[in-house]
Amino acid sequence: MEKLTVVKIGGNIIDNEAALKQFVADFSSIQGHKILVHGGGKLATELSAKLGIETQMVDGRRITDAETVKVVTMVYAGLINKLIVAMLNAHGNTAIGLCGTDSKLLPAIKRPVVDIDYGWVGDVLKQEVNTAFIHTLLQANNIIVLAPITANANGDLLNINADTVATTIAEAMSAEYETTLVYCFEKKGVLLSVDDDNSAIANINEASAEKLKQEGVINKGMLPKISNAIAASKNGVAKVLIGHAEDIKALALNMEGYGTLISQ
Amino acid sequence: MEKLTVVKIGGNIIDNEAALKQFVADFSSIQGHKILVHGGGKLATELSAKLGIETQMVDGRRITDAETVKVVTMVYAGLINKLIVAMLNAHGNTAIGLCGTDSKLLPAIKRPVVDIDYGWVGDVLKQEVNTAFIHTLLQANNIIVLAPITANANGDLLNINADTVATTIAEAMSAEYETTLVYCFEKKGVLLSVDDDNSAIANINEASAEKLKQEGVINKGMLPKISNAIAASKNGVAKVLIGHAEDIKALALNMEGYGTLISQ
Repeated sequence: MEKLTVVKIGGNIIDNEAALKQFVADFSSIQGHKILVHGGGKLATELSAKLGIETQMVDGRRITDAETVKVVTMVYAGLINKLIVAMLNAHGNTAIGLCGTDSKLLPAIKRPVVDIDYGWVGDVLKQEVNTAFIHTLLQANNIIVLAPITANANGDLLNINADTVATTIAEAMSAEYETTLVYCFEKKGVLLSVDDDNSAIANINEASAEKLKQEGVINKGMLPKISNAIAASKNGVAKVLIGHAEDIKALALNMEGYGTLISQ
Repeated sequence: MEKLTVVKIGGNIIDNEAALKQFVADFSSIQGHKILVHGGGKLATELSAKLGIETQMVDGRRITDAETVKVVTMVYAGLINKLIVAMLNAHGNTAIGLCGTDSKLLPAIKRPVVDIDYGWVGDVLKQEVNTAFIHTLLQANNIIVLAPITANANGDLLNINADTVATTIAEAMSAEYETTLVYCFEKKGVLLSVDDDNSAIANINEASAEKLKQEGVINKGMLPKISNAIAASKNGVAKVLIGHAEDIKALALNMEGYGTLISQ
């Protein structure tokens, strides 16, 4: 099986030009096939503010109204996506920037309203991921750069969660590739002590995750990340890691002492 | 040879939601391989104005400063591109939205400063168009939707002219495809009398174009369009037409009574 590395980067790296440049150089040097999933950082919030669009949050989640989905499509699928592609190409790669509606990579439905109406937010139809086309692009030596935007069958643009996109793609491609999935964030892994940057837990599995949750070590935003990671491991992704973007080269190789390795 | 239709649409259609919907439905029904090149309409100018970025024009051409290239990348390669892709997909197609830096489709240099510094504007390197990848995408039954944005080898994003992009792509693909190139605009063709919408000239060639220029029938914005069209005809594009977006189905078939057919 050929190797595939799927990396998700978040706002903290995108908002910092020097950090993004370094990350692109490092990511560029990883051997084998590569997919990069990115969010959009503060830029979408800033642009919304400048345009007088109020950012609505419910339970820490952004509500995507009709104006907001236009803004995130501009920022994520437009500026950030093409900036990263151009930077990767300047390093001698051939990168292609896409979102989920391109070639129907990530067909989705508008999230059904249960308690909260999230607005123009999508839930990806995992069984319909266009793995054949992703395979074609990878075999043509493209690095795929994916923005977390897609559309439903009606042609409505939808905002999707970048962690979920990375997880879904990694799972879907695991039948054909020995896949490593790395979620990058601003910490060196899942920290045993939130104030100690050097307290990253080397290994977490489903049982120890449960214990860490009860102890309150895993909480808030880390909860869905760990759930996603364990699910990925169960669904065939060979290696799943959480760590710092500045360690991406070591994380992609699962080098000892870098990040948290999550298994089922 | 398989058939390929390359269509360029401009701001007038993009700014009008009903017209765009009708255009997408019509374009969708054209047989054979298809590439759609779009501009961005008033949206980029409006967004710049809202963000307090002054639009600088010299001789009717937009000067693209560092802030403006970000705005056009957001609007062209982000919102407009993905909106059209989602609409095409909702019609049962498989469309893919790209700009010139994706898979190095349209390598370019920053336009050298002679009399005017156009800023972050690119000149496409015609010999380096990635025709192999366009061929791969078309053979996988993708409709390619192209935004007029690219990058240079340094990774700087550049604004490029949509008419030129359509011309360059049509010329480059003509070795492998029997290509029809249609420039859509808000008139029914090259008009003999500017006030008479029904005075479209059926055929123009290089000699008659020269005469029409001297008579002042071809002037202003139509001059570069006709030059592009004649060049395309000389460079192997089977059919080159100028006409109204609402006639796209008839234009793609070169039906009598629709648009102006340009030949060398």
